[in-house]
Amino acid sequence: MDLTYIQSEEIRKMIRNKQFNKFTSGVAIDYTQCNLVILKKRLAYDFLLFCQRNPKPCPIIDVTEIGSSKPTLSAIDADIRTDLPGYRIYKYGELTEKTDDISDYWEDDMVAFLLGCSNTFEKSLINNNIPIRNIEMGTMAPAYKSNIPTVKAGVFEGPMVVGMRPIPKKDIVRTIQITSRFPSTHGSPIHIGSPDEIGIKDINKPDYGDPVHIKDGEIPVFWGCGITPQAVANNTKPPIMITHEPGKMFITDILDESLSIL
Amino acid sequence: MDLTYIQSEEIRKMIRNKQFNKFTSGVAIDYTQCNLVILKKRLAYDFLLFCQRNPKPCPIIDVTEIGSSKPTLSAIDADIRTDLPGYRIYKYGELTEKTDDISDYWEDDMVAFLLGCSNTFEKSLINNNIPIRNIEMGTMAPAYKSNIPTVKAGVFEGPMVVGMRPIPKKDIVRTIQITSRFPSTHGSPIHIGSPDEIGIKDINKPDYGDPVHIKDGEIPVFWGCGITPQAVANNTKPPIMITHEPGKMFITDILDESLSIL
Repeated sequence: MDLTYIQSEEIRKMIRNKQFNKFTSGVAIDYTQCNLVILKKRLAYDFLLFCQRNPKPCPIIDVTEIGSSKPTLSAIDADIRTDLPGYRIYKYGELTEKTDDISDYWEDDMVAFLLGCSNTFEKSLINNNIPIRNIEMGTMAPAYKSNIPTVKAGVFEGPMVVGMRPIPKKDIVRTIQITSRFPSTHGSPIHIGSPDEIGIKDINKPDYGDPVHIKDGEIPVFWGCGITPQAVANNTKPPIMITHEPGKMFITDILDESLSIL
Repeated sequence: MDLTYIQSEEIRKMIRNKQFNKFTSGVAIDYTQCNLVILKKRLAYDFLLFCQRNPKPCPIIDVTEIGSSKPTLSAIDADIRTDLPGYRIYKYGELTEKTDDISDYWEDDMVAFLLGCSNTFEKSLINNNIPIRNIEMGTMAPAYKSNIPTVKAGVFEGPMVVGMRPIPKKDIVRTIQITSRFPSTHGSPIHIGSPDEIGIKDINKPDYGDPVHIKDGEIPVFWGCGITPQAVANNTKPPIMITHEPGKMFITDILDESLSIL
């Protein structure tokens, strides 16, 4: 079954019914996919402010009402507890479980934050014939803890995690234009060209995801990465935090193109 | 003394020392000016979420730490209690006082929200030779309670207030392009052309600001207005809310051009 152009509601239903549990890249490609961070109400204000202050790594798409698992503004009839193919449970900063249903973990003072994801701008780049190595290889984009500080908010602080994609020199200008149009899915690059300047010692040893080869004539381009909010939240060692399993995103009803600013 | 190109720190110092208490339009024009809303911590999360959900009327530029009157991310050495030419104090939704110093009102659980203001994009339009009637006349842009609902967040809800500027037909496309580049100062228009469709009965009787003449060949263009968050907050009748006096904005150190997305 080809899921490339499946409707968002349909694929969420399949996920909910345990008929799909794979990576969501390339699935329902017209729709915006999101990173998920669930925290308790006590941390919600600081986290929301952190995201507001760091929109490149943490672009907010939707926030549920306190205690509600329904992201009503971004997806009809969705339930954040069952509609992702995979979740991670962190307790006091430690990964304690991977699961495909978090209903048993949900509490009535939890808030779910849905944050924009690079799938949106990667698709736009591909539509412009700009190659994306990690998609060609079917792997996760390499991501690195940089030396770029995020802007602190309350208890949340720490370095920005950045994702890297090698881009042909001739496509650099167009790449900046395209990704600038999508500020709510990480927006324009954070850095171009010199990994060492942003604290990356070995480009072949990413802290997250998989390494990719940088070909002759290509330049490494770095974007703020959706792993940042998880890494920063985990620094505070909250009693509980729930996230999506990397690569297994929440699929909204929002059309990617509708997020374009121009 | 010509204050058009004065440095932001200098004009804030003059304001603090009671050497300037007029409208800030046309003053220190390179710098971003902001609407101010001060609320108590108890309402801060709902208000922050409201702004996040309604970025066109409520684009966040800076939020102070709880209890701090220093907007350190947007203005060096500034104090939000003394650095605006005028303030309004609202108690339970009623305007109770106008003042030029709110030091006596400041409490250690207050949060100041600084929100983008139309001065930024008006200047960009003028730089493109697109006339702005309210600036030509030296008046406040007319603003109206529309029938467009904002997206509710917690206790905050209500209709969007929209500001209107008549734009020559030939400049409409360029106007949309220019204002789209500035999402953090209200961004692209909310509506073009038909006041009645958005609940405005008499374009010559604005709910806020001053009426302007729409000339032949001009079309009324509407943007989300920074009065919206004040109007919505006042609907909840908070025990205390402090805002800027209309037209007397906070002048940050942020260069307007640095907010352009493209």
